[in-house]
Order: sequence, then structure tokens, then C-alpha cells
Amino acid sequence: MRWVRFTTQGRTSYGSLDGTTVREISGAPWGTHEPTGKTYALNDVTLDVPVIPPTFYAAGINYAAHIREMAEKRGVQPVFPEKADIGYRANNALIAHDRDVVIPKDATEKINYEGELVVVIGKQAKHLSKADAMSCIFGYTIGNDVSERTWQRGDRTFWRGKNADTFKPMGPWIDTDVNLDAMQTIVRVNGREDLRFKTNDVIFDIPTYIEAMTRYLTLYPGDVIWMGTDGTSPDLRHGDVVEVELTGLGVLRNRFVRAT
Amino acid sequence: MRWVRFTTQGRTSYGSLDGTTVREISGAPWGTHEPTGKTYALNDVTLDVPVIPPTFYAAGINYAAHIREMAEKRGVQPVFPEKADIGYRANNALIAHDRDVVIPKDATEKINYEGELVVVIGKQAKHLSKADAMSCIFGYTIGNDVSERTWQRGDRTFWRGKNADTFKPMGPWIDTDVNLDAMQTIVRVNGREDLRFKTNDVIFDIPTYIEAMTRYLTLYPGDVIWMGTDGTSPDLRHGDVVEVELTGLGVLRNRFVRAT
Repeated sequence: MRWVRFTTQGRTSYGSLDGTTVREISGAPWGTHEPTGKTYALNDVTLDVPVIPPTFYAAGINYAAHIREMAEKRGVQPVFPEKADIGYRANNALIAHDRDVVIPKDATEKINYEGELVVVIGKQAKHLSKADAMSCIFGYTIGNDVSERTWQRGDRTFWRGKNADTFKPMGPWIDTDVNLDAMQTIVRVNGREDLRFKTNDVIFDIPTYIEAMTRYLTLYPGDVIWMGTDGTSPDLRHGDVVEVELTGLGVLRNRFVRAT
Repeated sequence: MRWVRFTTQGRTSYGSLDGTTVREISGAPWGTHEPTGKTYALNDVTLDVPVIPPTFYAAGINYAAHIREMAEKRGVQPVFPEKADIGYRANNALIAHDRDVVIPKDATEKINYEGELVVVIGKQAKHLSKADAMSCIFGYTIGNDVSERTWQRGDRTFWRGKNADTFKPMGPWIDTDVNLDAMQTIVRVNGREDLRFKTNDVIFDIPTYIEAMTRYLTLYPGDVIWMGTDGTSPDLRHGDVVEVELTGLGVLRNRFVRAT
């Protein structure tokens, strides 16, 4: 089942997506809710970011080829993570499907995409074992962890390198039924396939992360965990359109424009 | 004026604090709101964290003595930040005044307090100059940036070293009228003064941070910026009670207990 968060006539709601029909509900899909009886055509509503997370988690480095290729670009030895230490991103940076990523005017040319699987939490959870870890998940969506590599490396934190406004496209919807083992991540730039990898070919899988995280922290409904990316991106330019497809789940598309 | 967020009879609201009388309002103090007419005695309500921020910012290192003393403890040269690169903390870790900080059972002995001034944003803001920076601030509260130093240094991120559940006490209220230039930060452990410094004796002041941040990101009402701490903490033990006082603003008190 697919769930969208959308705005129409100045009001933001959740709805289930049945083909191209949006069936509005009261509340959030992971909480108490009921159909309002209102339906809309998908084309007639504005899609919003599918959730504003209470806490925005990100695995960061979690794929071997990404680590090797990034190290090669920098002329250093690759360093693989030894354990599932989760990181963070910031809500100010979130934008929806089809909205523009705005590159700050003083950013360097090193603007990269990172196509990622996003886990959406549906139940409050602490002290989950790997065996039980998937029980707290509501569904999945798609993220693009846009990065300005010069700032990412030169600043003390990832604040503008990863979290400048518009740097975190997420959407278009949350899908509760996906086949993670069969899923491929495909990234297209201006319609041409640029990267493809097995989505689940991670260093630390979802149960490993959730077990490690919930040993020390409580996950809450609406929290998201971005699972990292493989491979590397070309430097993106003004006007480039990036599509991140997770097969069976959907396509997240955003145009990149440089601020003037 | 002081504002509290409180729960009574299972309902959470904001209210203004007039002596020890809480006057409930509808909505949030920085948004549209009106008095509900209900009043409570401060002792009869449960104080909550004064705001759940959309984004939880933290300056991290922002005082010279803290940097020098932390470097000395580690036997390394102090490194002072060259610019106002903001960092982040996580909402899961927030607890209110008078709630217990629970030290995870596998944490080392190196549990430290960090008493901090917290800026609470009241207006959406981007591209503010230093001269205009203070215009987006609603008020101020107190934070204790509890840290497990072994994890802080050994992990790839600050996830459990800084953001384990209960590691971010904040409160007890938001004060809109404070004298930052006269303010002192005083930390007491079990009633005995352990640390005192001028709150505003920072490396990068509030306008410098807000100008730098809003060049790349939008601040939203309810966002918080924790301004960092000076000095160093002793290693805290089971049963220790830590009070962070910001003179003229209030006292944030929390007991530390070790999970069994």
C-alpha cells in the first residue's frame, strides 16, 4: 500500500494512493485514522515530503563501492565502518518530489547526488533484537542525500555540506510493501542511467542498525533512517534533473538549479 | 516573560508563568494563541521540555577554556574552531527539568555535564545579517549537553555519546527577557558549586552563528540552538544531582542514575 502526504486548497493531509486516486484520511497512516471520504486525482494535489521526522537519522557510509570510490577521488585509503554508528540530517533541508534543489551561489562545482532507501518508523521501539527489528517499520520511501563535497570535507560538521535548504529531497510516497531483496537503486541524470546497484547490498543491514540504535535510543513513529548510497555521482550542474528509482517502490525526481 | 510547556490531566499545553501561577494558552507562544482562562499552580502540573524543535542545533565547541581543558585531558593540542559551523543533537534525547538522566549500563565512568544557554527561535528566518540576527529569537532556556566521552571520541558520530535517551535535559521554561551580558552560567553538583563562567564569553556569539546559519538554511519557530559550554565536568556518578543555573533565567536540575 502507498501513502502520500499532500496539500490541496491550503490544507495538508495524508491519503492512500490507489492507482492515481488519493483517498484522504484523518491523522497519520501509522496512528489512529479514518477515511474522510474525500478523494482527489493525484495530478490535482501537491505532493509534500511524506513525513517530517521527529528525528532524522542517516547511516552515511554503508556501501563498499561508495567508500572505495570516494577514497580514490580523494587519494586516500578507504576506511570501512566497524560498527553501525548512525548519523543525522536536518529537517530544514527536506523538499518534496518535483521541487527544485537550489545550489547556493557560493557552492563549488562539487554538487553530488546520493540515491538512498529510506526506512520510515511506525511504532515506538527500544531494545529490539535483530529478529524483531523489522516490526517497528511502517514502510519505505526514497531519499537523495545531496552533498556539496568541498563543504562536507572542509567544515567541522555537515551543516551546509549536507543540510543546506533543499539538499534533502524525499518521496514521492511511502510504500508499505516492498521486496528489499529484489530491489535495485537506479539513478538517472537527465534521463540517462548513471548508476545502478542492489539496494540491499549494504555493509550493515536494517536489522543491524535498528538493533544497535534501539539499544541506546527510542525510535518514534515518523522517524526516518536513510540507509546510505553506493557508487559515486558526477558533479551536477544547473538544470540537471536527477531521478532516483527504487525498483518496485517509485521514482524521486528533482531538478538542480543554481541560485543567482 | 516566562513560558512553560506542561501536562496536566493527560493534556499538554503552553502557559505563561506569573510567579507560581501558570496561565494556559491555546497554541504555542510564538504563534497565534489566546488565554484559555484556565490557571494552575506550578506545583500541580508536570513540566515538559519547553519545546520539541523541528531542528535541534548545537554549537558544540564555542568556549576557549573548554577546548583547552578537554585537549589537556586527552593529551593533545587544543584546536579552536575557525568559523561558526553549527552541529546537531537529536530529539529522542530530550528530557524535562527534574527528570532523571539514565546512564546506559554499559557506559564508561566518563559521564559529563555541559551547562548551556539555549536560544529558542520564534520567527522563520533566512539571510539575516548580524545586525538583524536577534530579531528571530523568541527567548532562551537552559540545556545540559550530557556526554559519554569514551563513546563521543570512539564512535564515528555523536549518536550514543551525546544522543542516548535522556542525555539532553532542557528547561525549565523559556524566558523572553534576559540580560545576556550580565548572565553567568553556574553548575552545581549535589548542591556544591563546581563551575562558573560568563555565559556570553563565547568564541562565536549568537548573531555570528545566526548570520552564518541563515546564509544556507532557514530557521523555523521552535528551532533551538544550544550555544556550547565552558570548562570541564567531573565524571558523574549514580545519584549525582546536577543543577545548571543561568543567572536571571532559572535552574535546570536533573539527577543522574545508572541503569541496572
